[in-house]
Formats: sequence, C-alpha cells, structure tokens
Amino acid sequence: MDDRKLTMLMDFYELTMANGYYVDKKDKEIAVFDVFFRSIPDKGGYAIFAGLEQVIEYLQNLKFGKDEIEFLESKKIFDKGFLNYLSNFEFTADVYAMREGTPIFPHEPILVVKGPIIECQLVETMILLTINHQSLIATKAARIVHAAKGRSVIEFGARRAHGYDASIYGARAAYISGVLGTSNTYVDFKYSIPALGTMAHSYIQSYEDEYTAFKAYADVYPDSCVLLVDTYNTLKQGIPNAIKVQKEVLDPLGKKLKGIRLDSGDLAYLTIQARKMLDEAGLEDCKITVSNSLDEYLIKELISQGAQIDTFGVGERLVTARSEAVFGGVFKLSAIEVNKKLTPKIKISENVQKTTTPGFKQVYRFYDENCMAIADVMTLFEEEIDASKPYLLFDPDYVWKKKMIETYNVKPLLIPIFKKGKLVYETPSLEEIRAYHKQEFNTLWPAVIRLENPHEYYVDLSEKLWTLKQKLIKKYKR
Amino acid sequence: MDDRKLTMLMDFYELTMANGYYVDKKDKEIAVFDVFFRSIPDKGGYAIFAGLEQVIEYLQNLKFGKDEIEFLESKKIFDKGFLNYLSNFEFTADVYAMREGTPIFPHEPILVVKGPIIECQLVETMILLTINHQSLIATKAARIVHAAKGRSVIEFGARRAHGYDASIYGARAAYISGVLGTSNTYVDFKYSIPALGTMAHSYIQSYEDEYTAFKAYADVYPDSCVLLVDTYNTLKQGIPNAIKVQKEVLDPLGKKLKGIRLDSGDLAYLTIQARKMLDEAGLEDCKITVSNSLDEYLIKELISQGAQIDTFGVGERLVTARSEAVFGGVFKLSAIEVNKKLTPKIKISENVQKTTTPGFKQVYRFYDENCMAIADVMTLFEEEIDASKPYLLFDPDYVWKKKMIETYNVKPLLIPIFKKGKLVYETPSLEEIRAYHKQEFNTLWPAVIRLENPHEYYVDLSEKLWTLKQKLIKKYKR
Repeated sequence: MDDRKLTMLMDFYELTMANGYYVDKKDKEIAVFDVFFRSIPDKGGYAIFAGLEQVIEYLQNLKFGKDEIEFLESKKIFDKGFLNYLSNFEFTADVYAMREGTPIFPHEPILVVKGPIIECQLVETMILLTINHQSLIATKAARIVHAAKGRSVIEFGARRAHGYDASIYGARAAYISGVLGTSNTYVDFKYSIPALGTMAHSYIQSYEDEYTAFKAYADVYPDSCVLLVDTYNTLKQGIPNAIKVQKEVLDPLGKKLKGIRLDSGDLAYLTIQARKMLDEAGLEDCKITVSNSLDEYLIKELISQGAQIDTFGVGERLVTARSEAVFGGVFKLSAIEVNKKLTPKIKISENVQKTTTPGFKQVYRFYDENCMAIADVMTLFEEEIDASKPYLLFDPDYVWKKKMIETYNVKPLLIPIFKKGKLVYETPSLEEIRAYHKQEFNTLWPAVIRLENPHEYYVDLSEKLWTLKQKLIKKYKR
Repeated sequence: MDDRKLTMLMDFYELTMANGYYVDKKDKEIAVFDVFFRSIPDKGGYAIFAGLEQVIEYLQNLKFGKDEIEFLESKKIFDKGFLNYLSNFEFTADVYAMREGTPIFPHEPILVVKGPIIECQLVETMILLTINHQSLIATKAARIVHAAKGRSVIEFGARRAHGYDASIYGARAAYISGVLGTSNTYVDFKYSIPALGTMAHSYIQSYEDEYTAFKAYADVYPDSCVLLVDTYNTLKQGIPNAIKVQKEVLDPLGKKLKGIRLDSGDLAYLTIQARKMLDEAGLEDCKITVSNSLDEYLIKELISQGAQIDTFGVGERLVTARSEAVFGGVFKLSAIEVNKKLTPKIKISENVQKTTTPGFKQVYRFYDENCMAIADVMTLFEEEIDASKPYLLFDPDYVWKKKMIETYNVKPLLIPIFKKGKLVYETPSLEEIRAYHKQEFNTLWPAVIRLENPHEYYVDLSEKLWTLKQKLIKKYKR
C-alpha cells in the first residue's frame, strides 16, 4: 500500500456501528464474518481468489493517527472512549483465508475473520474492496489465458484502468492467473512482473515515413526490435518495411527482427498473410503480437479462424473486466458470542440462494485419484475428514442427489493467516502464488473451465453443517 | 496522489520511444497531442470531463528518483544520456484543457499537450488513465443524478471499486456530477465530501432481535437515527419496530426518526407502503433511502412506478460504471515540428470515424440567446470567433447540412493549464467544480440528456480546419 494512510478508507457505517458496539459494551463480543460471493462473473464455472497479500498489509498497518481522530471528533457523534479506543487500536482477531490463486466457487467462505465484533466491522470495507477487485481481475485473466491455449497474453490496460491502483493491482492479479507480463512499468519496478512494449503509432508518425521510423527504432534496439506495422497499411507497407529493416539494418549486424505488432484491422486475415510474408523472408522466428479490444471471446474466435498469433495484448477488457465489472463478494455475520458461547447466526431470505450458511466454517476440497477436483464441502470448522474412509457427498438443496466416494484426497482450503492479530502466515512470493494457481487450475475439469455453459462445480455441506442450517431455518420459520 | 511515487506508472513503450527520440536527437521537437474519445458510454448523448486536478498534481510532481533510474538502467536498453535526462527531468510543455465538470463530446480535444515530443510521450499513460477513469465515473454519475429527478443520490460503492484509488477518485468524480455524498469516510477526510451511513444487517443480527438493535442505535444516535428495516421483514417487523423506537425512545427525548433504509425486495411496493405507515405514525419527515444494485435505469423505473424514495444509495453500478466500464480516451499526435515549423499530422483510417483531425486546435462552444448549447466547433487554435457576426455551422461529413446562426454567445473550452511547464491555472475547489458542472449541464437540451436515443450534439469543424483536413486526406490518398 506504499505507506499510504488509508485507515479512513471504510464505509462510514463501520464507524457508526463500531461506536454503537463500544457504547453498548458489545465491542469485545467475538464474532465470525465470512467473505463469500454468490455468482460467478460472466456465467463462468469458476473464479480465482486474489488480493490476500494486500489484505495482510492493510491489517498489519491499520492505525488511527491524530488527524483521523480529530476528523472523527469533528463529527460530534462519536463517544470519547471510542475515539480513545481507536487511537490505541490493535488488530487482535484471527483471520483464515484461502491461498491466492485458488479457484473459488459461490457460497463458500474464501476469507473468515473471527474476533471482537468491533474489529471485524472496522475492517470490512477494505477486505471486500481488496478481494473483490483482485479476484475480479484474476478471474477474468484466467479466462483469457485459458482461451489463448498456450499463446502468451500480456496485460496492456493501464490507460483504461479505474485509477492507479487498478492498473497496478490489476496487473498483479492478472499475473497470478498466468499473464506473461504487463505494459505497466511500475508493476515491473515494484513487483518484478516483466514490463513490455515498444512503440505507439505516434512514434511512426513523428518520422517523415514509416521506413525511416522503423530504421530509427532498429538502430536503437537491434537486439529487441519489435515493429508496429499497421500505421498506414499493414500488408502493403508495414510488413514490407519491416522486412526491409531486417535486410538493411539488422542483417548487417547479424540480428533478427523479434516481432511485429498489429493493432487494427481483420486480425485473422492479416496475421495469416503476415506470417506467410515473414516466413518467406526467412523470419520464421519473428513473433506476431496483436492487440485491439481483445477478450477471451475474441481470442477464441481468432484462434478458431486460424489466426497466426503468438502473443495477445489485452487491455481495457481485462483491466476493467468489462463484460462483468463487478465481483460481488460480501461480508456476512455467521456466528456471534452469546453468553460467552459462539452461536451460529443465519440470515434467511425469501431467495433461497441468499440464505447464508451459519457457523464458523472450514472448506475442504476433494480430489480424485488423478488429482482432479471433485467437490468442495463446507464443514463446521472443527470437523475433520478421514480420507481413509468413504465420504458421502450430497447436494444441500436436492438431498437425494448423493455420491459416495471411496478413493480421494482432501485438503482444507482455509488456512490460518492471523492468530490473535499476529501474522502466522508466510506470504508466498508472486512467482509461488502464480505456480500455485497453475497447479490448482489444472485440477479443474475442462467442463468447469469452458466459457459456454460450464458445469456447475459442487459446493456441498457436511451432514453436521447441513443439519445445523436446517435447524436454524426451522427455528426462524416458527 | 498522496506523495506516492508513481513516476514509473507509464506504459513501457513510452520509455522505449522516449529513449529512441533522445538517441535520434528528435527529443526536443515540439509536438501536439490531443486527448479525445470516440464514443459515449451507454450510447448516451454526453460525457463529463473529470480528473484534471490529479493530472496537474501528477505533472507538477513528476520526478525520476534514484531507484527508478537504477531500475531502468538494469534493463540495459536505455542510453546513458537518456537516463541522465530523466534524472534531471523537468516538465516544460504547455497544457490546455477543458474545466472539470464540462459536458464533452466525441472527437473534440478535451486536453492538449504541446511541447517536446519526449515529454508528451512520457506523460501519455498517466494523463489517459486519470482522465479515462474520472470521466467515466463522472459521466455515469451525471446520468444517475439526472434520472433521480432531484432526489438525492449517495455513492455507496467502495467495497466493489477497482482498488483504493477507484473508490476515492470515483467518489470525487461522482461528487462533481452532483452526487450528494459517499459512504467512503476517506473521501470526507481528504476532500470534505460528506460521508454518510448508519448500519449494516450484521449490526441488527448481532443483537437478540431487531427491536433491541434499533433501540440500541437510537440510544446512541438520537439526533441522527436512520434504521435499516429489511433484515427480517420490512413491513411486518422493520417499520413497526422503527415506529416503536420513535414512540419509546425518541419521543421521550423530543427527537424524530431521521430515516429508514431498505436494501432488498420490491422497492416500489415496499416504499409506497412504508411511506403510508410512517405518515400514519406522524413521521412525515422521516426520509426513505433505498439501495440494492441500483443504476439510472432502475431509478427511472422506480420513479415511474411511484416509489416513495427520498435518497438513492448507488453502489457497484456507479463506482465500476458497470454497464460500460471503459472510457475510451486516446492520446493522438496532431502536429509536429518539421524544420522548426509546426506541421499538422493526420492519421487516416478506412473507418472514417477513426481518421483524426489534424493540427493544434481550440474548441468553441456556441450558446443560443437562452444560454442553451447549440454546437461545439473545433478550430485552428489561433482562430477567433467574433460573436457580433453571423456564424455558419456545417456538418463536417455532410457539408450540405448548414445553419447560419445570428444571435449567439461563444466561449473557448480549452484553457491554458501549464505554460512552458509552469502551472498558470488556479485549480478551483471541488465545490466550484461541482457548481460549474451544474451550470454547464443545464445548458444541454433535454434531447441530448435523455437516456434513450439521445440527440447527437453537433461537433463541427471551422471552415479553415475542415479545409486543412481535406487537404491532408487528399495528400495522403495520392
């Protein structure tokens, strides 16, 4: 977070509620809040969890300074004792979360805060903001990278991002999901994610003609020469000029043109023609990069049309997740201490999908003998699953849909991040997160990954948790 | 920008191009770059310009520190002289821009940078990023505020914004376009935009029942009591409990319930019923606020159904501009020095709409005798318009469409911001920007403002500029 003081970045109601709890002497009651989401963007089959590192940074540095306290004081609605509490604020709660890069599914907790209700409430906005943003972009990037079928994808969206952080953390999230690099130099400077790029149309236009511009560029960058060929006419001028640069500038130096980029036109047709022309000129290793409002759907279409593309530069539609710009993570109370006993809470809704799952929970992921993910099961936190015994999966809504599994591996997805406010998690490097993402993404069946009508991955409840939920629903309905 | 060092936040190609210009000794050539956009989000009739203040902050603080230079050095592709130039970087260009809050239209320059080409290129990414983001949100907010027909709109989107800056500068941009306040406390702390909010469902759930929660809240906030009434059942429990709180807690204190908030259900039906119940209880002044994935379309629909709503809380669909999350501002070369003479440049495209308008330009807005905006006319920068004489407007594509106007006022929209790198513009306060927006928005005809099939506002060229453009097109086509 670059030492910015973002403490005040919280919805005002977190403060009015927190002050209320304080005045009412409820502030120390232990509560459990779950972060989860209800539907997957773009009707996809999975989402990708990201943003945990920034949540950790935030929680470790959460302090209310003098300026903030004075500002709150000026509102004349906050109790003096409460402001004093904020001045000495220390985060003392437990946090559990999934690892960044994990494929995640609706309704399961992806992050859990367990601690004094006053603290849970104060951290709500920033936790949601961070996770909603980065998970949105990581999810979109995973879709795009998958659609590219092994070809490279570069994040090109800085100029259309929703502010500076969106360009930075968006590139970070995209990198987790397998993007090769970014156009954003800051992200390389700060996170060592490779920054890439060569020239814009303005560079070409600033010279008297295209060839002169290409020659000038090749003179300066003989080892990394990538030329933008579509300023005037890709096939009649751009590529012939690029080939001429190879012959007249690079050949004498014993260098090869590294690539060309196209940013307009019929990319399928143009790249097929470009590939032929380059190959005929002996430039078989010259890579073709394309850009121009791409996304997973257009990439899929280009590939199916036989486009000859090595690298996709994906800008605005990735960095803004344009097709669905909202990741709807919520932060819901699932348990609270009543008479010193942690008591599950449910929020009933006429809309069945909006009824919450009560209690302090764990999520287990089951894998078959080939390490493919079968289902996630939400359980009470303390439940353990003995993988040496068969396990009965059942649909929580249509309970007659059952499946006994015999040979499986299982692992808990929520791992401890903070214990009583102390960080107990060793934050992995971005490269480790990226590798973990790749490994876990590969456990998903193709039917779950596909863009159109994906298979709905199973997210079930353990029998104990299901029984608890039914009991609370019945109690409420009386 | 909170003293963050965002210098490296630029597309990498800005640096490779800048280094190329430097090595080629072209770096000091004076160039003109226009920021403009090609299409209005959501097929609307107007957009709103925002972000200038942050562009100014950026340009004033642009320095390449030791860490940045070392980082660039490590890339092993940049000339030593270039890195030395960056170490001593000073912004020396001229910048012209429209005032924040101005309604803007496709193809007209909204910001112009005129200066050494190396500088223009280095500042491209951040200028676009800043303006694209804030103009996107200001435009969306203007649509929403207009749809609310005088009712209040509050920005509630922090938790779904694309990162921290998006929540902060998004709220700023929304405020320019007339939103009343925000949920985001930071924005109040930093920009004095009123932060508002009372309680979430978790607050209600943390008490044994709804009435106890309401009572607790009213005890703490008797002067500003707004209650969230939809946790269990709005009409059967929530509103009766709110009325009971009035009688049992607030009446004895001589206080009145300030408002209720609904976040779910059939908002038209529920608010009509709620209004009746509140009125019957003598709470005619109690305001009704609603939220729940609102946008301009839903607000229009709710109002047309007679919903009784005083305030709309608009979250994710405003802060992410979900219906069109991309504002497509571009940064295009329009002139460059050739033999010490500023020479207009054009970029031709088969797509007529994508052919740029050459030259260093001004934009004039014409108003009729009732101060309603008639048309914008792009001219050569030095052209002057004498409002005492008739002026011939004509369509640049269909030149037979002409209109002679006799009585009009006219003003240049691009005003000097920087002269040779020095700030010459007195940055207005946010309240002044907001007032300016309101004034200028009111000059738009209802036909331009309406959501469905708005009238296309005229953006014409002066005869001189039109002639220049035709000449360059012909020259290019030969």
